[in-house]
Amino acid sequence: MIQTEKFKRVPEHIGIIPDGNRRWALDHELEKHEGYAHGVDPGMRLVELCAAYGVKEATFYAFTVDNTKRAQTQIQAYTQACINAVQAAANLDYNIMALGNRDSKFFPPELYDYANTRVSYGKGVLNLNFLVNYSWKWDLSQLGEAGVSAANVEKGIASRDIPRMDMIIRWGGRRRLSGFLPVQSVYSDFYVVEDYWPDFKDEHFLDALRWYQDCDVTLGG
Amino acid sequence: MIQTEKFKRVPEHIGIIPDGNRRWALDHELEKHEGYAHGVDPGMRLVELCAAYGVKEATFYAFTVDNTKRAQTQIQAYTQACINAVQAAANLDYNIMALGNRDSKFFPPELYDYANTRVSYGKGVLNLNFLVNYSWKWDLSQLGEAGVSAANVEKGIASRDIPRMDMIIRWGGRRRLSGFLPVQSVYSDFYVVEDYWPDFKDEHFLDALRWYQDCDVTLGG
Repeated sequence: MIQTEKFKRVPEHIGIIPDGNRRWALDHELEKHEGYAHGVDPGMRLVELCAAYGVKEATFYAFTVDNTKRAQTQIQAYTQACINAVQAAANLDYNIMALGNRDSKFFPPELYDYANTRVSYGKGVLNLNFLVNYSWKWDLSQLGEAGVSAANVEKGIASRDIPRMDMIIRWGGRRRLSGFLPVQSVYSDFYVVEDYWPDFKDEHFLDALRWYQDCDVTLGG
Repeated sequence: MIQTEKFKRVPEHIGIIPDGNRRWALDHELEKHEGYAHGVDPGMRLVELCAAYGVKEATFYAFTVDNTKRAQTQIQAYTQACINAVQAAANLDYNIMALGNRDSKFFPPELYDYANTRVSYGKGVLNLNFLVNYSWKWDLSQLGEAGVSAANVEKGIASRDIPRMDMIIRWGGRRRLSGFLPVQSVYSDFYVVEDYWPDFKDEHFLDALRWYQDCDVTLGG
């Protein structure tokens, strides 16, 4: 049993920006691209914690169309890490989706089965989303095709199957969203961990929950 | 002369969330709505500082469609504060725009001249934008009418005349965007001041600039 602490209020849906893999690698005298492989196990641990504490949905900002401008070794490394993470989470008790532009060579064929559709496993205790070759411009541009009204903006975007995020946790110290789901993040409380993602500790997650339970929720009202 | 400190790098465009007026009022044994009037002078001071330090554009998150669900006394008070702020900034050296949904009784007629168009004064050293009866859904829903592609998302939204924000400063301690320009904020560095907005001090702005000069700018690359 993982759970040891009670909270007044737990976020239903957490967004995760697992940043700092390359800086972690350089600090450990590795090449930049070697950091990504060290980010898979932390992700699996974080998902276990989410399930244990009653979080219903978690969305990982895995990689973006912007990221595909990086060096080839890095692209290969983060793509492989992303595939490994999805495959490690499959066949457990999670419902898995890989959301992003699949009409591109950068969307790995290994994840086609999960592309913009949710695949359920076991007890389905948690929805687990990975943004894969995602771009905020791609996401919002679907509104142009849908021709929606203001009341239906959430239903016209490409990421319409991902609900509002209550909290976003970013590792690696940077204080920005970097294009992470602009519609679902409008009311998200934003928590920053200074440590790099491969240095993930349970305590980061627990500190974020401790902070979140005292945030008020106004949704702009 | 205001300027006394040199920075390695200054943001071109700052977004401002002047939050905490009502909490400030309660702390001063006033009624909630009485806080807003104390937020006008801080705004004018902040604009002077922006101009002195070479910031080229500042956007104030004045009030939103969500805010119009509040008590009538509060609506009247923040609307009047908003009108007073725009009128205080007019006839100086700024280019002023009031951006929001003007097809609504909540958009004050006193600001029609500035509605979604920029009015230039004097030397025009700074673009000064006020979001007035703004809503992120209203902003993005224009994409539905425009029918744009991913490459042109920025050009299809209602706020297309407001460029990317380099830094957002939020007063009042909350760590969320609350629907503030979801497209222009995708790469913004986010700085939070714990003090309430009516307690604005020059030092808040200078601390934000000191922090910003050492943030890297990657734009997702």
